[in-house]
Amino acid sequence: PDDAAIAAARARDAQLTKPSGALGRLEELALWYAGWRGDARPRIARPQVAVFAGNHGVVARGVSAFPAAVTAQMVGNFEASGAAVNQLAACFGARVTVRALDLDRPTADFVEGPAMSEEELVAALVTGWEAVDPEADLFVAGEMGIGNTCSAAAIALALEGGEAADWTGRGTGVDAAGLARKTEAVAQGAARIAGEADPLEVLRQLGGREVAAMAGAILAARQHRIPVILDGFICSAAALVLHRAAPGALDHAVAGHLSAEGGHRRLLDALGKAPLLSLGLRLGEGSGAALAIGVLKGALACHSGMATFEEAGVSGG
Amino acid sequence: PDDAAIAAARARDAQLTKPSGALGRLEELALWYAGWRGDARPRIARPQVAVFAGNHGVVARGVSAFPAAVTAQMVGNFEASGAAVNQLAACFGARVTVRALDLDRPTADFVEGPAMSEEELVAALVTGWEAVDPEADLFVAGEMGIGNTCSAAAIALALEGGEAADWTGRGTGVDAAGLARKTEAVAQGAARIAGEADPLEVLRQLGGREVAAMAGAILAARQHRIPVILDGFICSAAALVLHRAAPGALDHAVAGHLSAEGGHRRLLDALGKAPLLSLGLRLGEGSGAALAIGVLKGALACHSGMATFEEAGVSGG
Repeated sequence: PDDAAIAAARARDAQLTKPSGALGRLEELALWYAGWRGDARPRIARPQVAVFAGNHGVVARGVSAFPAAVTAQMVGNFEASGAAVNQLAACFGARVTVRALDLDRPTADFVEGPAMSEEELVAALVTGWEAVDPEADLFVAGEMGIGNTCSAAAIALALEGGEAADWTGRGTGVDAAGLARKTEAVAQGAARIAGEADPLEVLRQLGGREVAAMAGAILAARQHRIPVILDGFICSAAALVLHRAAPGALDHAVAGHLSAEGGHRRLLDALGKAPLLSLGLRLGEGSGAALAIGVLKGALACHSGMATFEEAGVSGG
Repeated sequence: PDDAAIAAARARDAQLTKPSGALGRLEELALWYAGWRGDARPRIARPQVAVFAGNHGVVARGVSAFPAAVTAQMVGNFEASGAAVNQLAACFGARVTVRALDLDRPTADFVEGPAMSEEELVAALVTGWEAVDPEADLFVAGEMGIGNTCSAAAIALALEGGEAADWTGRGTGVDAAGLARKTEAVAQGAARIAGEADPLEVLRQLGGREVAAMAGAILAARQHRIPVILDGFICSAAALVLHRAAPGALDHAVAGHLSAEGGHRRLLDALGKAPLLSLGLRLGEGSGAALAIGVLKGALACHSGMATFEEAGVSGG
C-alpha cells in the first residue's frame, strides 16, 4: 500500500464535517482503500464480481443436497443474469464475469487421491489470474460448485487442524445423513495428506478448480492493486491457502460477511479478518461480498465526497 | 401489513434459484417489506432520508463537545449536500430533505422544567408528520442537534429505568468531565418527572423538537405504509416513545445499525430490534440507516429480480 496516500487520506478525514471517528469502520475502510489505490480521495466506479464454477468428484459420496448437474445449470443462470449475485452486483454497479472450469471433467475424489494434477492446478490458478479486469477498482471472487463446501472444509482442516466436524456444515442444506458422509469425507481427505505443509499442495490435493481459480484471482488483484472483498466459506478457504503461503498476502482484502455456514467464523479468525456484514447468508456465488460492495462504496463516498469544516463553515470540536 | 402479499412473496421466495433460506436475513427483509407495501414483488425506487434539526437548552450545562451554533451550520451543510448522510443517500438513490425546527429558540433546559410546551411538542410532531413524502417507498429519519444524545438518554432512562450511566455516552466525543455533567443532567431530568407513565409526556418533558419530529415522521410513514429504517441512539429514543405508547407501533420499522454510542444496544433490546449493520458509527444524521438502505435494496433486488428454478432450468434441491 501507498503510505503517502494513506497519510493524505488520514489528513483529509480529520477535516471532514463529523466528529473524529464518528464514521467508525467506514473511516478505516476508506484509508485502507486509499492506500491500495494510491489515491487519497478515490471513488469506487468499476467493481468486478468474478464467478468461478467447478465440479467435484467427491460429490459421488452423497455429500450435497443438490446433484452435480446444478453447477452447469447455475452457470447458465449467472450468464442470463438470473442469480442472486447478479441482482446484488447490479444494485451496486458491479460487472459480473463468469468462468466455468471444465465442468464436464470433475476433480478426482479427494478421499482416494489428489483432486487435481499439477497441470490442472496451474491451469485453474491461471484461469483465475486472467479473469481479473486490470481496470477494475474493486474485486469480488465468487463461486459455484456442487460439493465445494466439502472441499473447502477439507482444506481448512488440513491447514488449521481441529476436528472435521469443526469445519463441516450443511452447505446448500444437506440432511443429517449427508452431513455425516460429508464429515467423514473431509476427515479422510485431510488424513490422507497428514503432515503436508505446503498450502498449494493442500489446494491441489483437496481443492477444486474454482477454489484454485479464486486463489489465483485474489493474487492477481493484489498485483493490480485492486482491493478485494472476500465472500463466504469457500472463498475464505481459497484465501487461507494464500494466507498460509505468505503472511500478508491478504492485506489487500477485507472480509465481506460472516456466513451461516458452520465453520466460517473459525475460518475468518484464522485469516484475522472481522466481517463487514453478518446477515445469515450461506449462498456463495460472491453474494455476501457483493452486498458488502455497498458498504465500501458508502465509505468512499463519505470520505471523498464530504465537505471539510472549512468548506462548509462548520466549527470543529 | 398485507398477509396476502406476504404469502405470495413467500411462495415466490421458495421458487428462486437458491437453496431455501440461503439468503438469510435478506429473505425475511423481503417478506416484511412486501407485506408493508402490499406487493409480492416490489422494488425500492424512491427512498427518502429526512433530517430534522433542533437545539437544546441543556447544552448550557456543558454536556457536548461542540457549541450549539454547530446545529445551524450543519443544517447548511445538509442543504449544500456536504454531510455524510448526503453522500450515503446519493450512493443508494435516496432523496434528502431537511427541516430545521426553530433553531434560534432552543428547548428549555429539561433539568429545570419541561423542555417543550404542549403547543411546541405538537408543532414538532406535525413538522415530522408533514415531512414524509407519501410517494416514498422507504423512509429514514435522521437528526442533528448539539446536545441531543443527552435528551435521548434522559428519555430512555425515564421510560426504561436503570441508571443514568447506562444510557449516557460520549455523543460527539465529550470529555470525561463533560460526560460526568451529562450523566448528572440525565439523572436529574429523569428524576424530576419520576413516575410519569405517559410516553408522549416524557417526550415533552425531556425531548427536543427534532426528536419529536422523528417520532411524528415514523408515525406518518406507518400511515402511508412506508417501511422505515431506524438510525442510531437518538432515532431509537424517538422510536421508543412510540413503542411504549402503542405495542406494535414499530412493526413497519427495522433497526438499521448498532451505534457505538454507549446505550444503543440496550435501547435496541428495549425495542426488540436486531440491527442490520454494526460498523461502529456514531454520527447520527440518519447515516447508519442510510447505509442500511443498501442492504434493503439488495434484499428486494434479489427477491424481485432473481430467476425461478423453472425460468432458469435449474434443478431444485
